[in-house]
Amino acid sequence: MKKQQIITKEMLQPSQDDLKIVGVFNPAVIQKDDEIIMLVRVSEAAKNNTHNVFLVPVYKNETVSFVKINKNDSNYDFSDSRVIRNHSQNYLTSISHFRVARSKDGVHFQFDGTKIFPETEYETYGIEDPRITKIDDKYYITYSAISDYGINVSLIETNDFKTFTRKGIIFPFDNKDGVIFPKQINGKYYALHRPSKSDFAKLDIWLASSPDLLHWGDHQVLTKARPTYQNSTRIGAGAVPFLIKGLGWIVIYHAANETHEYHLLAMLLDEFDPSRVLKISSKPLLIASEPFELRGFFNHVIFTCGLTYLHDEVNIYYGAADESIGLAKLTIEQILANLESVK
Amino acid sequence: MKKQQIITKEMLQPSQDDLKIVGVFNPAVIQKDDEIIMLVRVSEAAKNNTHNVFLVPVYKNETVSFVKINKNDSNYDFSDSRVIRNHSQNYLTSISHFRVARSKDGVHFQFDGTKIFPETEYETYGIEDPRITKIDDKYYITYSAISDYGINVSLIETNDFKTFTRKGIIFPFDNKDGVIFPKQINGKYYALHRPSKSDFAKLDIWLASSPDLLHWGDHQVLTKARPTYQNSTRIGAGAVPFLIKGLGWIVIYHAANETHEYHLLAMLLDEFDPSRVLKISSKPLLIASEPFELRGFFNHVIFTCGLTYLHDEVNIYYGAADESIGLAKLTIEQILANLESVK
Repeated sequence: MKKQQIITKEMLQPSQDDLKIVGVFNPAVIQKDDEIIMLVRVSEAAKNNTHNVFLVPVYKNETVSFVKINKNDSNYDFSDSRVIRNHSQNYLTSISHFRVARSKDGVHFQFDGTKIFPETEYETYGIEDPRITKIDDKYYITYSAISDYGINVSLIETNDFKTFTRKGIIFPFDNKDGVIFPKQINGKYYALHRPSKSDFAKLDIWLASSPDLLHWGDHQVLTKARPTYQNSTRIGAGAVPFLIKGLGWIVIYHAANETHEYHLLAMLLDEFDPSRVLKISSKPLLIASEPFELRGFFNHVIFTCGLTYLHDEVNIYYGAADESIGLAKLTIEQILANLESVK
Repeated sequence: MKKQQIITKEMLQPSQDDLKIVGVFNPAVIQKDDEIIMLVRVSEAAKNNTHNVFLVPVYKNETVSFVKINKNDSNYDFSDSRVIRNHSQNYLTSISHFRVARSKDGVHFQFDGTKIFPETEYETYGIEDPRITKIDDKYYITYSAISDYGINVSLIETNDFKTFTRKGIIFPFDNKDGVIFPKQINGKYYALHRPSKSDFAKLDIWLASSPDLLHWGDHQVLTKARPTYQNSTRIGAGAVPFLIKGLGWIVIYHAANETHEYHLLAMLLDEFDPSRVLKISSKPLLIASEPFELRGFFNHVIFTCGLTYLHDEVNIYYGAADESIGLAKLTIEQILANLESVK
């Protein structure tokens, strides 16, 4: 298996003069006509943080402005590079939007200038981790919208990756890693999602179904976090599932342990009943090992939101260390060899 | 306004010899034929807790068994009478099921022997806080199902309050206070719900819509917690909304402050667009004041899951101190006088 870094933040300019790009990562990917289209998460932070003051970026009135937090205020916990925590309110240290990139060969990408910025009151802390599902001739983008109203999985529709229509929240807070299957199964749409905050639950992958992509129900646990893998305490769907006819749906998903090290795993779902897990990884499929995966904005992360599958070759695109984008080329055989049957 | 205690735990027998009833509260209420039907939450705890060992009740294989927790284990926090907390796992101190009671006059209720026990893997810590919505000739019971899979709002359907059909989870975890409107509005069903756990959000009342009562979408914040009321930090829908034609939907809801004191409030929603809050309480509508509301299993709680509305009289049934059931008789005029217009 071959891994390589294909996009870095140096390829882009920040969206405002007072912002700097801190990460270009977690891309959604889809084949459209003769191109691979990528929707990239671009995270930006204040350029002018000082020794004493942290500037939290917040989107409002079509621009990013800043909330000032005193770095010496002991009510705040700055130990996580992604989040500033206090007992009643958390802030993100950076704010994300999406940009469109295109490629003919799936390796070399050009940004075409199209951007999706936060827009609604549910997106004031940014939009993150898109996935693109093509159904008939439309493209559905699921993503996490973050604000003082929580982390909500939301939906955007597009035909052309030039104009985008928001379709609202489909999985209310806190929920992440919403991923829609690319076709109906027995007359219903299906999605994976990851309810993300509970007094009682572990963070597992859930399955839901829908008659129309907008209204979702029949929520059930699909796969539990399996602590046997590097003590992972939470999992979430990664790329959009793809179908191998006669075999089933392949889902590439992530797991993270208590110290927030992420790796990728796979599972095989029944072709006609995606609530049936037939096989699942017996060991990590992809782990952070290269320098650009081990060190970055947030260390030791491989996180996928998209892949392409053509001629038995699977190109997994992934965010590396929450900072750049990597590509891992695998064969279907390599993925299947990683799976063991579920009893 | 007249308040009275109408049901106490002494009226019932525990469901197992090794359990004791600790509360009979938070009842759903519906008019059916010439009766008022009540679905009561009955909470039970181990009868044989000792000085050193706390027995956590868990439903499994059609019976309640117990998880033993050492009371001297400093990893556990026993300060809340409802929940035992530790850093990785919480337990409920009691486990709840539902029982059916019936009344001709709305004040004197007889239990008819019908019970709904936890049943699925999503209900191992119990089922709580039911609401009954009648639509056409069917009755839909929304409730919180609690387990190691979180607190999930789930749905049960019945025609007769003798046999009950589970319809699965409609609002995944952690979510509480799911309440369905009693008729379609502009061709869609509506519900209120309360996503309940977030790294970023406050606990507000949300609105959702559905084509079929099973699949829900178009999630949006309806009403925010208003700290002006006794410093309330969270709110949740209470009774099923009722319509006053030409005026709008009346929603009776609860608010709680940081020290978990609950009171009731009201709001008025647009008859044809329930996302529009027209009026809202300017002060608490009902607060704990009687001894049975101030002291009980959990002190200082008034919490409603059901009411009846007939001839301008509103009978609000409520759980008092998580232990007994009270009835408050109000007129529509009293409720309307409590509201102020929203700008």
